[in-house]
Amino acid sequence: MAKRHARKRSEKAGMSPGSAIAVGKRQLSDKTWISTTRYNVDKIEELTDVPLDQIGPDVPPTENLWINVDGVHDPELVQRIGQKFNLHALSIEDIVNTQIRPKQEDYGSYLVVMLRMILRTDKKAKGAKCFSTEHVAIILGQNWVITFQEQHSADVFEPIRTRLRGAMGKIRSCGADYLAYAIIDAIVDGYFEVLEELGEELEELESQVTNPESSPMLTEIHSTRNFGLFLRRYVWPVRDVLAGIERNESPLIQKSTRIFLRDVYDHAIEIMEMLEAYREMASGLMDLHLSAMSNRMNSVMMVLTTVTTIFMPLTFIAGVYGMNFTFMPELKWHYGYPSILLVMLSISLGMLVFFRRRRWI
Amino acid sequence: MAKRHARKRSEKAGMSPGSAIAVGKRQLSDKTWISTTRYNVDKIEELTDVPLDQIGPDVPPTENLWINVDGVHDPELVQRIGQKFNLHALSIEDIVNTQIRPKQEDYGSYLVVMLRMILRTDKKAKGAKCFSTEHVAIILGQNWVITFQEQHSADVFEPIRTRLRGAMGKIRSCGADYLAYAIIDAIVDGYFEVLEELGEELEELESQVTNPESSPMLTEIHSTRNFGLFLRRYVWPVRDVLAGIERNESPLIQKSTRIFLRDVYDHAIEIMEMLEAYREMASGLMDLHLSAMSNRMNSVMMVLTTVTTIFMPLTFIAGVYGMNFTFMPELKWHYGYPSILLVMLSISLGMLVFFRRRRWI
Amino acid sequence: MAKRHARKRSEKAGMSPGSAIAVGKRQLSDKTWISTTRYNVDKIEELTDVPLDQIGPDVPPTENLWINVDGVHDPELVQRIGQKFNLHALSIEDIVNTQIRPKQEDYGSYLVVMLRMILRTDKKAKGAKCFSTEHVAIILGQNWVITFQEQHSADVFEPIRTRLRGAMGKIRSCGADYLAYAIIDAIVDGYFEVLEELGEELEELESQVTNPESSPMLTEIHSTRNFGLFLRRYVWPVRDVLAGIERNESPLIQKSTRIFLRDVYDHAIEIMEMLEAYREMASGLMDLHLSAMSNRMNSVMMVLTTVTTIFMPLTFIAGVYGMNFTFMPELKWHYGYPSILLVMLSISLGMLVFFRRRRWI
Amino acid sequence: MAKRHARKRSEKAGMSPGSAIAVGKRQLSDKTWISTTRYNVDKIEELTDVPLDQIGPDVPPTENLWINVDGVHDPELVQRIGQKFNLHALSIEDIVNTQIRPKQEDYGSYLVVMLRMILRTDKKAKGAKCFSTEHVAIILGQNWVITFQEQHSADVFEPIRTRLRGAMGKIRSCGADYLAYAIIDAIVDGYFEVLEELGEELEELESQVTNPESSPMLTEIHSTRNFGLFLRRYVWPVRDVLAGIERNESPLIQKSTRIFLRDVYDHAIEIMEMLEAYREMASGLMDLHLSAMSNRMNSVMMVLTTVTTIFMPLTFIAGVYGMNFTFMPELKWHYGYPSILLVMLSISLGMLVFFRRRRWI
Amino acid sequence: MAKRHARKRSEKAGMSPGSAIAVGKRQLSDKTWISTTRYNVDKIEELTDVPLDQIGPDVPPTENLWINVDGVHDPELVQRIGQKFNLHALSIEDIVNTQIRPKQEDYGSYLVVMLRMILRTDKKAKGAKCFSTEHVAIILGQNWVITFQEQHSADVFEPIRTRLRGAMGKIRSCGADYLAYAIIDAIVDGYFEVLEELGEELEELESQVTNPESSPMLTEIHSTRNFGLFLRRYVWPVRDVLAGIERNESPLIQKSTRIFLRDVYDHAIEIMEMLEAYREMASGLMDLHLSAMSNRMNSVMMVLTTVTTIFMPLTFIAGVYGMNFTFMPELKWHYGYPSILLVMLSISLGMLVFFRRRRWI
Repeated sequence: MAKRHARKRSEKAGMSPGSAIAVGKRQLSDKTWISTTRYNVDKIEELTDVPLDQIGPDVPPTENLWINVDGVHDPELVQRIGQKFNLHALSIEDIVNTQIRPKQEDYGSYLVVMLRMILRTDKKAKGAKCFSTEHVAIILGQNWVITFQEQHSADVFEPIRTRLRGAMGKIRSCGADYLAYAIIDAIVDGYFEVLEELGEELEELESQVTNPESSPMLTEIHSTRNFGLFLRRYVWPVRDVLAGIERNESPLIQKSTRIFLRDVYDHAIEIMEMLEAYREMASGLMDLHLSAMSNRMNSVMMVLTTVTTIFMPLTFIAGVYGMNFTFMPELKWHYGYPSILLVMLSISLGMLVFFRRRRWI
Repeated sequence: MAKRHARKRSEKAGMSPGSAIAVGKRQLSDKTWISTTRYNVDKIEELTDVPLDQIGPDVPPTENLWINVDGVHDPELVQRIGQKFNLHALSIEDIVNTQIRPKQEDYGSYLVVMLRMILRTDKKAKGAKCFSTEHVAIILGQNWVITFQEQHSADVFEPIRTRLRGAMGKIRSCGADYLAYAIIDAIVDGYFEVLEELGEELEELESQVTNPESSPMLTEIHSTRNFGLFLRRYVWPVRDVLAGIERNESPLIQKSTRIFLRDVYDHAIEIMEMLEAYREMASGLMDLHLSAMSNRMNSVMMVLTTVTTIFMPLTFIAGVYGMNFTFMPELKWHYGYPSILLVMLSISLGMLVFFRRRRWI
Repeated sequence: MAKRHARKRSEKAGMSPGSAIAVGKRQLSDKTWISTTRYNVDKIEELTDVPLDQIGPDVPPTENLWINVDGVHDPELVQRIGQKFNLHALSIEDIVNTQIRPKQEDYGSYLVVMLRMILRTDKKAKGAKCFSTEHVAIILGQNWVITFQEQHSADVFEPIRTRLRGAMGKIRSCGADYLAYAIIDAIVDGYFEVLEELGEELEELESQVTNPESSPMLTEIHSTRNFGLFLRRYVWPVRDVLAGIERNESPLIQKSTRIFLRDVYDHAIEIMEMLEAYREMASGLMDLHLSAMSNRMNSVMMVLTTVTTIFMPLTFIAGVYGMNFTFMPELKWHYGYPSILLVMLSISLGMLVFFRRRRWI
Repeated sequence: MAKRHARKRSEKAGMSPGSAIAVGKRQLSDKTWISTTRYNVDKIEELTDVPLDQIGPDVPPTENLWINVDGVHDPELVQRIGQKFNLHALSIEDIVNTQIRPKQEDYGSYLVVMLRMILRTDKKAKGAKCFSTEHVAIILGQNWVITFQEQHSADVFEPIRTRLRGAMGKIRSCGADYLAYAIIDAIVDGYFEVLEELGEELEELESQVTNPESSPMLTEIHSTRNFGLFLRRYVWPVRDVLAGIERNESPLIQKSTRIFLRDVYDHAIEIMEMLEAYREMASGLMDLHLSAMSNRMNSVMMVLTTVTTIFMPLTFIAGVYGMNFTFMPELKWHYGYPSILLVMLSISLGMLVFFRRRRWI
Repeated sequence: MAKRHARKRSEKAGMSPGSAIAVGKRQLSDKTWISTTRYNVDKIEELTDVPLDQIGPDVPPTENLWINVDGVHDPELVQRIGQKFNLHALSIEDIVNTQIRPKQEDYGSYLVVMLRMILRTDKKAKGAKCFSTEHVAIILGQNWVITFQEQHSADVFEPIRTRLRGAMGKIRSCGADYLAYAIIDAIVDGYFEVLEELGEELEELESQVTNPESSPMLTEIHSTRNFGLFLRRYVWPVRDVLAGIERNESPLIQKSTRIFLRDVYDHAIEIMEMLEAYREMASGLMDLHLSAMSNRMNSVMMVLTTVTTIFMPLTFIAGVYGMNFTFMPELKWHYGYPSILLVMLSISLGMLVFFRRRRWI
């Protein structure tokens, strides 16, 4: 997964900075969906599939505008949006680079926050496979917010839209900075779900490992660990991003919103700690698995040794009385056969007692 | 255990911040118990099961008020208390989120401290199983303290109540900040008991591992390690919480109380170091266990090899004289049988000497 | 690889600082190639194989000069260039030391940046072997940049030259500091390619390790890990170098260029994180491999134990009835032979059932 | 060892801060020994077994007073001393808590330093067992020093007393801060001896592990490692304590004494580094031991395989000619027996050559 | 090696600080060699075996004096030198303590730098054994430098003397601070040689480990690792020492010299990184070795299992037809013997095919 990123990146090596080459897997022919939400305390107006030339930063100061762009595979279109809103070339380069590391940057007249949204794609399936990640760029201006999503699919913003429509909480009465906070919060809260799934997978693996019946699942532990590693790539920088926004003295963010950003920051810390704990659990699981296998090997060896040690002497005795020497007095003795059987029986019983004492059987 | 937390959390994803949805396992029908303690140097008045409308921040400046709320599963009730004391929406969200990470926040007119109380539930039982953890939120105002507990069960505050009643120490003559300190101190001191138990479990496991008689207890080492991991989740942030309170220049905390907070901080450091030491001990134990198992395997292999090496040649010799060739002069020889038995005896004795020299037997 | 460095270094021990002894593998007889690019917004003039006496820092303020020197094996020549541009003795020592650790230094009138360029030498081959590294020293003056390369071979600067020639982007309209940025950016972006290759190798190794058919490739995992270690040596310091340049308040770097340097810094962070992730993957792979081998050993042991446990008792029974006692009633019995075969059959079937239940076969 | 600490601590949970409950293992009936040393450049006066009411902080400014208290098990007595010298309740709590973590605190009119003294109890015995640790509290006032020791036994202060009596060095001409430094220095220097012993134990274990003759000593490595862990608990905080004293701008410590404290600080760093190095050595030893055991297992397996591989085919051949088929032409052949012996001999020789080539024997 | 240090140190425990007791292995009777070099731009005067009373800090400001003292085993002599140059008692204690950790200290009128010189003792031998380390104390005053060496043997300063004599570089025209820099640089550069050797040893060990022919060399890997650990003890503090000197605002060091000190600092960083890389290589080697041994064990087990699995059934069949039942129809059958041989052959062929498919043989 991490590899795919790198491969795309190197295609850009040596190019002019700010050259908006889309680093992603979608074709240019795919449509880009633009939707806008314009609201203030009193009213809300939602438009979907808005043509490019109808959007712009000319919002009256009493209103807030949220533009959501689904699809950044067409660099030219993003560049044209960028020009309308006066975005720096590097911002546009970052928006279309769908593999970018989460980061935030203050360009004076606007703030850029790049995050990675984690989405459950299959509501019924279990495990890490049913999650997909998507690059989201959030641009916060004076009284507008633009969100660029990698794909026109489900997102984690539906509850925000519901709150906007229903004027729930204070979202309608606050500025664009509060909207940006709400978006960031929704993305970060979305991490909890995938972490839960990871935690459940780990617990299931743990119960499998400690259960002697179930067969060893080494590659599953490994892949769960790798999934945690992959998540970490996108989750770790989030803390720095949020700390950066919080410390940022940009006038775009009001003081009353900062306390909410501090709350998201706390969530990010919590997520990081959960991830670290899961990582330790996964590595403990690996140890446990190796040790369980070593245990099993021990018991196999004990069976082998027990069987060999009991039957080798018996077979030897049988071999001795199978020799064809002319003069072997025991062979002629009438009770030779039963006595030798008795000897054999007592040897094997002795062995069994010995092994029982050593707790091998 | 950590998993349960995550699962609950994701249910809140995307919701309006400050939406007080109880993240816990109790039903709404459970009763919430409110008790108040109003005291100053001269007098003390304790009330239990106080109705909601009789509490409020209107305490005369010469008195201190401690309100203890057992049960935060009814968000509406908590919200009403919060409104009475003018608490921020985020504070209320944190109070009802019983899975929150320990933290402290300064809201100007009041301080919030979230900790996790560790309680011994079964006085007689041993081991980590007999401990339960409970979320405690401490709100420190001008001359009042509110504590929210997750459940109406035992708590670690009994000694504080005794000191209040008996006017022991300076608790009655100090302000609400000293009471808050006493509460935090009681919670932190409660960690020592569970750490002791953890230490004792580790020592017992160690004596089991080094004892060759006792059977390997891998899963127990693992679960003890995991319990340490779980504790760490709640204990580690306590240091930052206390450092934050200490550094905090809030006028709510008097200078004379800060030296006591510094003392609790030292305890938190001590607890963290004990936890780290136990963690290293647990991982050393894992190594020791693996190595003991490897040792055991070695000795099993030596038995196997010794037995095989002694009896294989003997059986072969017996096999040779069991062959049915017509012309085998030894078979006719009168002393053939005893001589071959002698040969066999000397071979096995030689082998035994060889293995004794190699210290295998 | 790391070793070669050290060996060369020790030859300089105790020498006068600034003594420009070339630490490299090329002979003095090799030619040094000097090429110059002189440009401003309006025009560009490229010269190759320029004689030493035609270069100098006397560029009109409206123009920028880029001097590229291929080959630093002739210390005298580098020293003469250094004298022309007034470079400090230590700068010259660093330029000719091709094994130096990436670093940056501000000498007031000029900045020195030492990096390591990673180049793909064989476009078709796969794996780490097809990459070579080369020492590059970048000297940024008022309106000139000098780049010293270790060898006269391919470099990663071709796209920059194309942009200069084609006046693409803003490179022609910006100052020498922007050119220096473009050069650093090209070198850092070049790391992505080798990281991709490393990632692909790791994935291939992972699929081999988890495939029970393929034979273990321990030394390959080891060498991939060592390659990552080797890369780290040159990649880690890049972050500090870039942070140093960014923090540097030198008037040689304009404010508009700093935002681009910040972007390269972000790339360096990304590269470091990829490298760390690969390192963890490699060590996880090692664990996986060891565990797969342990698994295989387990199954081998189970086959051995199964075979031994089934045939040992059978052979013993056959041995018993091969004994030559005169009085063995079973031998005379007409159904003795078939009955004993039946007994043997049931023993082996019983064993098979037993092993099947234990999931050994 | 660490456990014992915790168990005692929890008994204090919830108690009033500053409640001087002795956390130790001595009985109240044990006597507390107080001795005083009053000195200046000209004279010295030593008293032992001084009654409590004869001590106090009323020393003329031209003299220094050192009060040494052996035994802190009687909290009341300590409290009375504390009241005489105006000590804070928390200081007294720390003095009687013999399990406290090393720390220093500045109470304005006096400084408190808590350290752990390590003492060799048995001069002749070897190993970690012959060391005991003791809690020491050092209180530095204007011109007096009080030292509280856990027990009335040997201490590491004898050389200081000798220097005081003999007026060696500058100890008599310096103030109480120099005396406090001398005491701290003596305690810290005492750590070197136990570290030596630890180092020697590690070297002995190393020679045992690499010696194939000696039997594996896993539990000894483990216990040595644990002892290092235990030491670390008391040694690590010493660095912070000393750094704290050094940074401390208390007028109680003169500038000329600070340079000596800096020297002790360097010793503490050195001790920490030695401890870390020993820890790495111990963990390297564990690896070495495991690997040596794995080596031994390998050689056992090779013996087993060699013996089995040689004798299995021979026994099979003997078995074949032991079959009772009526028509087996070889059996009748006169040279059958010697030829088959020859075949067996050549098979076993061939096997031996094969194993010799594989370097198994 | 580390142990030896500790043992000597503890002998000083409790002694008066500044008591110049030589911590080393040389006898008092050994001679101490003093040599002086007095130079300025115009002239140089070298004297060897100078009597003690002819040296002193009274050098004319236009000249620099370098005093080199070989042998610090006679504390009295060092103390007399110290008194002449007004050195602090602690400085003298540090000079004669040949086991001290590298450090630097600013005593106002002079600077002290303690380093450890690593010297190749046997030019032809290979490996870590041919290096010895020696304590060097460098005292930098106004226009004099004193170097104290542990022994009168070879040192790494010969190139500096040559440069002084030949007036090479700027050493003669610079002040005493430049001389001190040159001495520090020579010592630090000397570390490269021992690191090379370490690197070469590691590479050789690596080729041995990956070569299946060569026998395992576990103790060698271990001792190489320990040697790296030992080096680290003396190399790590060097970074702090140099950073300390650089940050130091002492007027004894001119600004022009600081840039050179910065260069030595870079070397120290480089050395530290090499050491860390070697350490990781050594631990990777240990893993590789363990894994190679595990591999070898696997192949031994496969041989054993193959042989056992093939011959056990054959031997059993032979045993069956060796039974002495009266009624065994096959025995009478004319083609019984050849048919049974055929059966045996096909069984063994089948087994071989099976093992070939499992890639065991």
